[in-house]
Amino acid sequence: MSTLTCYACGETVEAPAPPRCPCGEPRWYETDPAVAEFEWPVDLAAGTWAFADLLPVAPPADGLATASGGTPLVRTPALDEYAGAAVSVADEGRNPTGSFKDRGTAVGIEIALAEGADAVGTVSHGNMAMSVAAHAAAAGVECTVCVPDDISAERIRNIGRYDPRILRIDGDYGRLYYDAIEAGAERGIRFINSDSPGRVAGQKTTVLEALDQHRRRTGELPDAIVLPSSSGGHASGAYKGLSDLRAAGLIDPDAEPGAADAMPRLYLVQAAACAPIAEAAARGAETVERVEPGETIAYSIANPDPPSGTRALYGARETGGTAIFVPDDAIREAKRRLATAAGLTVEASSATSLAGARRLAREGEIDADESVVCIATGSGFKESVGDPDDVRTETVTLEAFPDAL
Amino acid sequence: MSTLTCYACGETVEAPAPPRCPCGEPRWYETDPAVAEFEWPVDLAAGTWAFADLLPVAPPADGLATASGGTPLVRTPALDEYAGAAVSVADEGRNPTGSFKDRGTAVGIEIALAEGADAVGTVSHGNMAMSVAAHAAAAGVECTVCVPDDISAERIRNIGRYDPRILRIDGDYGRLYYDAIEAGAERGIRFINSDSPGRVAGQKTTVLEALDQHRRRTGELPDAIVLPSSSGGHASGAYKGLSDLRAAGLIDPDAEPGAADAMPRLYLVQAAACAPIAEAAARGAETVERVEPGETIAYSIANPDPPSGTRALYGARETGGTAIFVPDDAIREAKRRLATAAGLTVEASSATSLAGARRLAREGEIDADESVVCIATGSGFKESVGDPDDVRTETVTLEAFPDAL
Repeated sequence: MSTLTCYACGETVEAPAPPRCPCGEPRWYETDPAVAEFEWPVDLAAGTWAFADLLPVAPPADGLATASGGTPLVRTPALDEYAGAAVSVADEGRNPTGSFKDRGTAVGIEIALAEGADAVGTVSHGNMAMSVAAHAAAAGVECTVCVPDDISAERIRNIGRYDPRILRIDGDYGRLYYDAIEAGAERGIRFINSDSPGRVAGQKTTVLEALDQHRRRTGELPDAIVLPSSSGGHASGAYKGLSDLRAAGLIDPDAEPGAADAMPRLYLVQAAACAPIAEAAARGAETVERVEPGETIAYSIANPDPPSGTRALYGARETGGTAIFVPDDAIREAKRRLATAAGLTVEASSATSLAGARRLAREGEIDADESVVCIATGSGFKESVGDPDDVRTETVTLEAFPDAL
Repeated sequence: MSTLTCYACGETVEAPAPPRCPCGEPRWYETDPAVAEFEWPVDLAAGTWAFADLLPVAPPADGLATASGGTPLVRTPALDEYAGAAVSVADEGRNPTGSFKDRGTAVGIEIALAEGADAVGTVSHGNMAMSVAAHAAAAGVECTVCVPDDISAERIRNIGRYDPRILRIDGDYGRLYYDAIEAGAERGIRFINSDSPGRVAGQKTTVLEALDQHRRRTGELPDAIVLPSSSGGHASGAYKGLSDLRAAGLIDPDAEPGAADAMPRLYLVQAAACAPIAEAAARGAETVERVEPGETIAYSIANPDPPSGTRALYGARETGGTAIFVPDDAIREAKRRLATAAGLTVEASSATSLAGARRLAREGEIDADESVVCIATGSGFKESVGDPDDVRTETVTLEAFPDAL
């Protein structure tokens, strides 16, 4: 399984090869023809590697590399009325560094090691930076993390836990995404960015695992999947995973909507203030264009120029889904509901999935009797929340305590 | 499975009953005689409920209650030289609210619901407070969390995520542990504290799950388990779990040390500044006495008067283990190693397990060729780390970037 293809122009090359096709679109790993033999259910305890037969590299023996995935899909009836459908939440915050990124990093670093790399890097100041730094530390390879010069103190501390080399970039951070891959390749540093083919292969497993769990529980695939989207790498992986299931005969492209093995519709959600993929969807365009970003609490998904945006939109449409955006107020409310009605602590970006499901149900895209999987991409424990003075408390003496109960 | 017994005096009562025996020691649930039928391996994807046959209540249908446990045991060769043995880390931070507490809370609240409770409470300002508040929110029952009046802003924010009623107690917080259970019972509020029998039953599953995974990987049980200990509730559960395995014939009490099914030695670790259980162990006492607490970075395990301390020490000794303490410097260093050598972010309290393993190996209690399971009880993402100015960074321009790599 070492062939890279371009979904857009069909060009095929053997790995290792640059992550981007000469046509400008990103490449991904072609799944082995043996995908036709793939069967449900898998051994979920193996996490990301439960889907090794669909991945381009063999499972590692030990260490953090073995420990991503295996996250629960939680059926949350308490959120159904709010969302307007039967909600399950995939809690990706329960990965080793608190986000879905660990699945892609695990696969990306295994490929890099298999190809002889002894140094890796990434262009990120959030979840991906932490994930690559942690996995590199555990694999015993050097790691360079490139962050914008004005990075927040909270983020520096979170990345610093794993002691990578941290380069603050004074200049156009967006351009660095491409520059770093090239400059790194010349200097023996393998950059594992958000849509690197190895990462996208690993990110397939978010949806594959959630669907396996949904099927165990109900005997059916969900009707819809709602995924927060930024660079489009995770969304590309989700679509590739669904394609693999179709190739394995586990999704029937000709099934009636609602059938147990019908294709789930993949919906991508962005924050209104920075929604290049959703804006392209709204204007019926095939190509995602750069936007001027505004401020949003969902900063983890605020990429104004998503490198895999066009591919992500293509994938969502192929499944019968699309891309939408939700405003910060809706994100804030969805985050609060996830915590206070379902006990789930997610980062603001992840709450866009529930806010998005609600919008889709209100607009008739999702029916009340349909099942929807909301992917909560990252843990809320890594971002500090509000003002402690906003938390309601009462003070009582020990003596007055019983009567205060 | 509704019989409560006292390990110390043997008294038996039918549940529901007070959590404490008239002799003063805590009660726990007697495991069904059907434990003799229990077999490895279980379906690990079911998390805490994979061990339903050994628990006093039936598994819930959905929601957060289904989502605890299922955490990975990570074999970490990179830590072997430091620890002086073959280390595996059970990453309990990957529970829904970031700590092992969720296992005990899930079981405790299911019991409360089965017995008709519609309001719960807890005495905690840390992991347990978050866990009970989250599970109560998801179960749709009222929740009262009792915290000390001088609680930190960070902790208030973390508990406040789930919007429980928060009572700040102005007075002796230690006494409240017992007062609250009584006052709550009179007012229809079920307090699920650190050594409530339901919680202790749920806490059995930390060790049961880790041992199942160890056995899958190596065909053997580990030689030793190292567990951070505070109230003694988790340690009591660990010992009860080992007892259940012995009753099921899966641990052979007469096996030679090192045999595949020999009893793992359970070691409890405390912070030097607050080590009542370790001090009792050191003086050969049977009873754990209150100590004057000092300051420690391992605040999650700094209970100066552990309600299940005596039982915890009894359990550790029964397995051939004991209780020890480690200083803050060693905890800090172990925490750093877990992150920078293994990519695991744990709270300071959890790092005592690795620091403890190292001390035990240096003192000849654990041999270099032995396998040791370190239980990392909680996630490091909930506690802020150090000063951002301590993180080494370099600033470069986009133009200078390639040469800076």
